[in-house]
Amino acid sequence: MEKVGVKVVVIGGGTGSFTLLSSLKQYVRDLTALVNMADDGGSTGILRDELGVLPPGDIRQCLVALSQSPKVRELFNYRFDSGTFSGHAFGNLFLTALEKLTGSFAEAVETAGEVLNVVGRVEPITLDKVTLVMETANGEVVRGEHVIGDADFASQRPLIRLEPVPRLNPAAAQAIAEAELVVIAPGNLYTSLAPALVVPGMHEALMSTRAKKVYVCNLVTKPGQTDGFLVEDFAAEIERFADFKLDYVLYNDTKPDDVLLKRYAHENEYWVEYDETTLKAAHYKARGSAFVSREFKASNSGDGDPIAHTRTYIRHDADTIARALMKIYFS
Amino acid sequence: MEKVGVKVVVIGGGTGSFTLLSSLKQYVRDLTALVNMADDGGSTGILRDELGVLPPGDIRQCLVALSQSPKVRELFNYRFDSGTFSGHAFGNLFLTALEKLTGSFAEAVETAGEVLNVVGRVEPITLDKVTLVMETANGEVVRGEHVIGDADFASQRPLIRLEPVPRLNPAAAQAIAEAELVVIAPGNLYTSLAPALVVPGMHEALMSTRAKKVYVCNLVTKPGQTDGFLVEDFAAEIERFADFKLDYVLYNDTKPDDVLLKRYAHENEYWVEYDETTLKAAHYKARGSAFVSREFKASNSGDGDPIAHTRTYIRHDADTIARALMKIYFS
Repeated sequence: MEKVGVKVVVIGGGTGSFTLLSSLKQYVRDLTALVNMADDGGSTGILRDELGVLPPGDIRQCLVALSQSPKVRELFNYRFDSGTFSGHAFGNLFLTALEKLTGSFAEAVETAGEVLNVVGRVEPITLDKVTLVMETANGEVVRGEHVIGDADFASQRPLIRLEPVPRLNPAAAQAIAEAELVVIAPGNLYTSLAPALVVPGMHEALMSTRAKKVYVCNLVTKPGQTDGFLVEDFAAEIERFADFKLDYVLYNDTKPDDVLLKRYAHENEYWVEYDETTLKAAHYKARGSAFVSREFKASNSGDGDPIAHTRTYIRHDADTIARALMKIYFS
Repeated sequence: MEKVGVKVVVIGGGTGSFTLLSSLKQYVRDLTALVNMADDGGSTGILRDELGVLPPGDIRQCLVALSQSPKVRELFNYRFDSGTFSGHAFGNLFLTALEKLTGSFAEAVETAGEVLNVVGRVEPITLDKVTLVMETANGEVVRGEHVIGDADFASQRPLIRLEPVPRLNPAAAQAIAEAELVVIAPGNLYTSLAPALVVPGMHEALMSTRAKKVYVCNLVTKPGQTDGFLVEDFAAEIERFADFKLDYVLYNDTKPDDVLLKRYAHENEYWVEYDETTLKAAHYKARGSAFVSREFKASNSGDGDPIAHTRTYIRHDADTIARALMKIYFS
């Protein structure tokens, strides 16, 4: 397939970015992933605590998504399953060892990109060590991405900030400045997307770029955090985080399978609905489509995305979204 | 420098092989390192115990010695210095993760060789999981490379075997069959060299190859194991392990610096002396030379061999030995 020479920036981290990048790389020649750096759970959290490094987990996922070497891809996602190392992804250890060796996380990411033979680039949203901080409507302050991820704040739209105040990675600022399309990937609103968007400098970068700014809306709500949120509520939160205006919102307009919905309802998760009138009146162009993957069974069998299938079964059809993004670029 | 098209096999593992391979790769186009697989101490021992893998440590050292990529070399030798991973060399984790992922240690070594951009090849002496077993003159049986390394058997020339009985790696057998020069590297007699030489099949391989067989003798004795050993005693042990005859023995004929000798004497280690008459009468050709490195101070500053300088200060001058080996090949 002939790739398009459009400069695309994808902002996020985690599974949503992974899926989108895996698909976009088929279409786009110049792709940059900007990755939130607030992760402090699991393997990444242990490495941060014990070795004082920057969080490797989401960076690893984005590198793997853009990798063209199947063998090394697999190796980077390999998780030790017993002993002292149990639960640690090899790629996290790779980035950590390189950062300790060179003293530079940016250099570690670059070298990992070479070894993985990635198309495009992966850039940390900041190179400063940060903690995610949430302040709820009733003044309660909660610290740590992992803790906030489990918090129930009755979907009251908390304030999100990073401490100490970080600087936007200059390479990230430059990528946004030069971009023609900036995509906010689907992802956890307060623990994946907010930490990328609230970095000081992001507002200025998004306000001054000539790129079209698109948000790919989440498919399901998160209990205690986005209960009852409609597509327009998600979009409003995204805009609030970096105080900017979206040009496009892509959302799913097709109800997923009843069996799936029931399984999700058990976990108090529901598919994200929308109000057509509100969306039509919005300053951004809202584009609805059947964005839910019909291949949820195949993904569950272990091929394809090795991460997403363990976390969710209502997944984005990344190829349909990639094509919708290309359509926006050419419109 | 124009390299020589001679096929050279180096048998050993650990620091002695590292030093020799680092130097030989400057001269030799076709170099294969055969590595003992009995290591069970330190980082390697933990990985064997917890994950059931083959021992990566000596393989890593040989791969690093043959690597042409300075950055990846450094990364492979990087040891985590705190937390869960403290003491583990990154390269060990690389080989372990790949073996777990692919189910094949041979494939893991091959991929590591690609990533490290090695000249030549590194082959495990066997692909079977083995334990080193020693039976002393008074019938005592000791198990485990690490335990045997610390044992004191009054230099009584113990029996050494591997359990369960392993097979020689076919790739190792082939390398010996095709070799023109087989070099037994200097190294720990009972825990590095014996475990490589006692593998069933090694005797046959060494007896049938047309290669010249050379042993590069150790520089110092090991307390409780080789006290009072002369060059000819080391050579006799090497021949006993695989029941074969050496063609050449290279040994150091120049007394090291007094200050160094004193420091070693503190640890009950002494330089290996020799009996000229015995050596002259031997069936092998004994070639003495000033083989002790004069650069022990430079190596202590951290450049050059990143492993050896932490372990010993009486080191082989690897370049002089490499040249002596080339001279033997052409003689």
